[in-house]
Amino acid sequence: MLSFVRNYSILPKTIKSLSKEVSSSTNHVQHVKGWIKSVRLLKNIAFIDLQDGTCTDALKVCIPIENSKETEYVRRLKTGQSVSITNAQCKMTPEREQSFELKISEPLKSISIIGNVTLDYPLQKKAHSLSFLRTQPTLKHRSSYLSSLMRFRSHLELSLFNFFQEHDFTKVSPPVLTSSDCEGAGELFKVQSSSRDNDSYFGKPTYLTVSTQLHLEIMAMALSRCYTLTPCFRAERSDTNRHLSEFWMLESEISFVDSVLELTRFVEEMLKNSIKSCYEQKNELLPIITPDNSLTREEILKRWESLLHKAWATISYTEAIGILKKQHAMVPFPNYEPKWGESLQTEHEKWLAGEHFESPVFVTDYPRDCKAFYMKANSEELPGNETVACFDLLVPEMGEIVGGSMREDNYDSLSREMARRKMNSSGELTWYLKLRSEGTIPHGGFGLGLERLASYLFGSHNIKDAIPFHRSASGSIEL
Amino acid sequence: MLSFVRNYSILPKTIKSLSKEVSSSTNHVQHVKGWIKSVRLLKNIAFIDLQDGTCTDALKVCIPIENSKETEYVRRLKTGQSVSITNAQCKMTPEREQSFELKISEPLKSISIIGNVTLDYPLQKKAHSLSFLRTQPTLKHRSSYLSSLMRFRSHLELSLFNFFQEHDFTKVSPPVLTSSDCEGAGELFKVQSSSRDNDSYFGKPTYLTVSTQLHLEIMAMALSRCYTLTPCFRAERSDTNRHLSEFWMLESEISFVDSVLELTRFVEEMLKNSIKSCYEQKNELLPIITPDNSLTREEILKRWESLLHKAWATISYTEAIGILKKQHAMVPFPNYEPKWGESLQTEHEKWLAGEHFESPVFVTDYPRDCKAFYMKANSEELPGNETVACFDLLVPEMGEIVGGSMREDNYDSLSREMARRKMNSSGELTWYLKLRSEGTIPHGGFGLGLERLASYLFGSHNIKDAIPFHRSASGSIEL
Repeated sequence: MLSFVRNYSILPKTIKSLSKEVSSSTNHVQHVKGWIKSVRLLKNIAFIDLQDGTCTDALKVCIPIENSKETEYVRRLKTGQSVSITNAQCKMTPEREQSFELKISEPLKSISIIGNVTLDYPLQKKAHSLSFLRTQPTLKHRSSYLSSLMRFRSHLELSLFNFFQEHDFTKVSPPVLTSSDCEGAGELFKVQSSSRDNDSYFGKPTYLTVSTQLHLEIMAMALSRCYTLTPCFRAERSDTNRHLSEFWMLESEISFVDSVLELTRFVEEMLKNSIKSCYEQKNELLPIITPDNSLTREEILKRWESLLHKAWATISYTEAIGILKKQHAMVPFPNYEPKWGESLQTEHEKWLAGEHFESPVFVTDYPRDCKAFYMKANSEELPGNETVACFDLLVPEMGEIVGGSMREDNYDSLSREMARRKMNSSGELTWYLKLRSEGTIPHGGFGLGLERLASYLFGSHNIKDAIPFHRSASGSIEL
Repeated sequence: MLSFVRNYSILPKTIKSLSKEVSSSTNHVQHVKGWIKSVRLLKNIAFIDLQDGTCTDALKVCIPIENSKETEYVRRLKTGQSVSITNAQCKMTPEREQSFELKISEPLKSISIIGNVTLDYPLQKKAHSLSFLRTQPTLKHRSSYLSSLMRFRSHLELSLFNFFQEHDFTKVSPPVLTSSDCEGAGELFKVQSSSRDNDSYFGKPTYLTVSTQLHLEIMAMALSRCYTLTPCFRAERSDTNRHLSEFWMLESEISFVDSVLELTRFVEEMLKNSIKSCYEQKNELLPIITPDNSLTREEILKRWESLLHKAWATISYTEAIGILKKQHAMVPFPNYEPKWGESLQTEHEKWLAGEHFESPVFVTDYPRDCKAFYMKANSEELPGNETVACFDLLVPEMGEIVGGSMREDNYDSLSREMARRKMNSSGELTWYLKLRSEGTIPHGGFGLGLERLASYLFGSHNIKDAIPFHRSASGSIEL
């Protein structure tokens, strides 16, 4: 007897759907297609591992070999070919990792090659190194590891969206083309119409967004809670394993929150919810074999468990500097001495999260001059010691993955701070300031680098692998 | 007795959550915040309609007025102010549209103004016209209609994502920065680093993507099924109510499908699934009052019902031209005579879907030279009559909202077609061609303009309202 979990009638069956549908020991499979991951030819039997990228597991196909014609035929099968398997029997194999395999009886009739590969086809049965795979941008996602990472990222995104939806957030799409540079910080990419004069398409200089926050604040003052997942762009000069010129940022703004601790609690809850959702799907999501320099399956699971079971620490920047200074006195940091008033360096961030807390840690209330103009000032502080109500979430090995703050919602305070920083000289941010004079509200928000989060949770050490085609300072743009 | 549907403890209550939680006639509400939509002051009582953008319904707050001090206090309340209401009683009103209202007893204690508005605050109690709202880009989303449209779009996106996930698709993020122009068609936006010489950031000319399809095909040959929702860019010269320079495109590629009818069936199923999901949430999603030039709530519902209850027609381009010619002979189209071999014009598309079929219609198999190079040729056709295995989905009033095709998966055929079109002269598309020599497979896909779909389903007639901050040829980029 067959039993079907879902109705897949619109499209042909995938290997993933097959695995879910199979529930008995005698199941006829009329049709399945995929790419050959490996072939093993023994004396009287051959095995194909077939993959189609919809799940981690490959589908094992057993082929009895009865004569030399069949041997010859199977010899033509190679890694990378696309093939169609028809008329197979499903055999349950509860004792093995894969719970079932297919068996065909007439290889010449049941296996047909759809698309061949060239003699140069670079992927082989063995697991390739990431540095090799990165040289194969059109083929690398056919490797088990990188296809798992893509499926993982997809799952992660949807789990985040669901969490927002459950909390009455609206998903919005703020513009990528903008005339403002948000934080006044990063290196910008400038945009021109290829067929018109400079700057004339929109009538003024146009840039690619570095953060959608300012626009999101408009939306949060209408919808209370909003979020977006949008590509953001920074013409970075640094090209490290934590930097991309084009990356996807999950940004959110929340109205009617009063303190930075409400934001950190929300972020912790949000991330733990996603990690839990990944954990529940661990068999589907995790790769079986992982390359050097990446966490193994077991290590990833341990990372997730540890993230879920601990309450994440929260300390102020001032406390963090105290801890870092003490450490620096014992074992000096290689490049930077920790000093109150200066940004935390990556080496400080990684040490704090990775070695001191061995856990993600929220660092709050940074000095005003380390952070952007829109962050809400903490009150009652001595001149020179002013801090803002903000946080960075630091995680082991990666450093910062989320940054957020309360936004200055008082017109006069924001106006003074912009003047102090000599901003808005030509009125380009007057619209932003004026939001504070029409039904202003306490609000805050955060931005999360999706590739950094995916990389960290998946235990891969280079965020360039967490996006299908990376753009970075030293990278090519051939594709 | 109170009963709570969900745990909202991480963040303060929204008006949406309040509506879901209220289930008894005596419910104490400690705290709720929002913006005043309207105030009505009568002799011994006043009413506030409070909105927070999380749902269509405003929350009615009843305020008994007992003395002149309270009258004075309530007189200070104005549309647009953000306020906090504390210590209220919930009263069930099953006889009215809103099933409950709040009642406070001491207005001076229970209502506090968080943020005032200026005397110039442009939004009033009455519904504003869309043309007026478009002049208020920082405030317009506080209107009931446009906030409903934003929530609708958000719901629509998530329903599409869920459908893809249920069908074993992986959500991927192809690049926005690219060196190719995909279809060789549109006007491109060119990108430069603001701090480096022209073209030198990535070492070659860099553009904003007009379609992610070519990159998606790489992913589909690894993951079998993938989709993305990505901003796409066209430096259009035309500025109509159907065009944006920056728009979000839902694109998908599907491996192992063999015919264009599998694609149209999938698209129809996908859209009907989303419409069904919207229909189930109609009370939450639909605006109560709609502006002139937009469908009313009842008309929107009728549109959805009609979309769900009909099977959508499918005709070939050649059949479409036949029908159009017949019509043209009776009532000539204002601008273009329908002719085999030429693209369907918007007036033709709108007439076919809107008047002839009164339903969405898939038009398939367009002449080869009307369409892009990568579409799969139909076989056995006479020279001059060659068509490709493609489709456009036309809907009444809007015209095309989805376009898709089978992709040419044969190396030689694709190579010949590229040569015929004098493409790939400097090898820039060799990587794309070579995909056909490494495990090629029959595959196809489509692209859907999200703003067009949202507009059409929401019955709004200008896609500029379906995106929070529109970018178009004649538009400003002030924000």
